[in-house]
Parts: sequence; structure tokens; C-alpha cells
Amino acid sequence: MTTLPALPSAAVACCSPVTAGILDDNQAEALARMFKALGDPNRVKLLSIIAAGEDQEACICDLTEPIGLSQPTVSHHMKLLVEAGLVTREQRGRWAYFSIVPGMLDALADTLASRP
Amino acid sequence: MTTLPALPSAAVACCSPVTAGILDDNQAEALARMFKALGDPNRVKLLSIIAAGEDQEACICDLTEPIGLSQPTVSHHMKLLVEAGLVTREQRGRWAYFSIVPGMLDALADTLASRP
Repeated sequence: MTTLPALPSAAVACCSPVTAGILDDNQAEALARMFKALGDPNRVKLLSIIAAGEDQEACICDLTEPIGLSQPTVSHHMKLLVEAGLVTREQRGRWAYFSIVPGMLDALADTLASRP
Repeated sequence: MTTLPALPSAAVACCSPVTAGILDDNQAEALARMFKALGDPNRVKLLSIIAAGEDQEACICDLTEPIGLSQPTVSHHMKLLVEAGLVTREQRGRWAYFSIVPGMLDALADTLASRP
């Protein structure tokens, strides 16, 4: 079973560029929710570990050691990244696996970039 | 007088891509500080207003009305954006003017993008 975030709406809102005009309330809230999830060094690091993995995927069993935190703490951080729509979670037997939502980091990058 | 953030170090740290390998503690903290500053709908909206202005600059006198907040509240949000190194502040007579740090949003975008 895969837990999917509310991807379509998030992706649309996510694609309203910060640099192309004044954002409305919904666009600003959708963007802020993603940036807030990234506003913690451990979550930035977790995301970078997953992004560096094969197929941009990682088992929680491989996240605790490099980050130096307990599994419950890592699970908490991962829950926030999933809720923000940046990462999906899939349970495989004993372990949870996390994947970067395809295209989401690029879409978020595009909201900040001045280049077309 | 212009208040400059610690630009060189911030720009260097900012340019460590999330998607190119596991970030070290300093890189993760520098990035998280910027994302945290963006993790609020009002600050995202303020940044979008400034980015939409001529020369990516705006007077605080032009920020309060579109955002619908008091000047002290807007000043507080702007202080956090300045401290994060995303925006500079310049006092001109009665009013403070804010500018996007040149290249900083593009550099931050590059940390998220998978494209070269």
C-alpha cells in the first residue's frame, strides 16, 4: 500500500512562481507548507540522502545511521516530508520505504528560479 | 547604509545541492535556515511582491497594504528574510527598502533542481 499525498493540487499550487508576480493566499500557503517542511537541517539531510539513493528511494533502515537519530525521530521527520507532498511512503514487510515525489523538487525549484 | 547578510558564505552553502549527495551538517543548516524563512505564507507572499517589483525592490510602505498586515508585523517578517540572507534592507530617509539578494533565489532553486 502506498500512501500518496494530495499530489495534483500540490503540484499545481507548487508551480506558481514566487518570482512571476504576487501570489494569492492559496498559492502562498501551499508553497510555505513545502518550504516549512524543508526548514529543518535533519529533514534537508534526510531528503538529500533519499535523493542520492537509487531511484531516489531509501529504506528507513538506511536513514537512521547516517543521520544519527533514533528511528522514531526519523519517522517523525519523514511524516512531515510526506505530509508536505515532497516524499511518498510505502510499507514493504517490516520496513517503510520513502521516495521523492517525481518532479516535485524540480517544480519547487521552478517557483524560485528567475530563469524560464 | 545597507545592511548586508553574510552573503559569500551563505551563497556557497546555499549552492550545495540537495539532489547531488548527502549534505554535511553546515550545508544542511544553511539551507534549512533559508527554507525556514520561506516556511510562512506571509513571507512567501512578501518575497513574491518584492520579486515582482522594479529591480526586485520594494518600499515597506508598499508592502503593508497588499499583505493586509500592520507595518510592525511586516517589519518582523522582513527581518527574518534579511537574517536568512534572502533579502537586503536599505534605509532611505523615512522608509526601509528591501531587495532580493541578486542570484540568491536562483542559487536556492539550484539546490533543489535535478537538472544541471
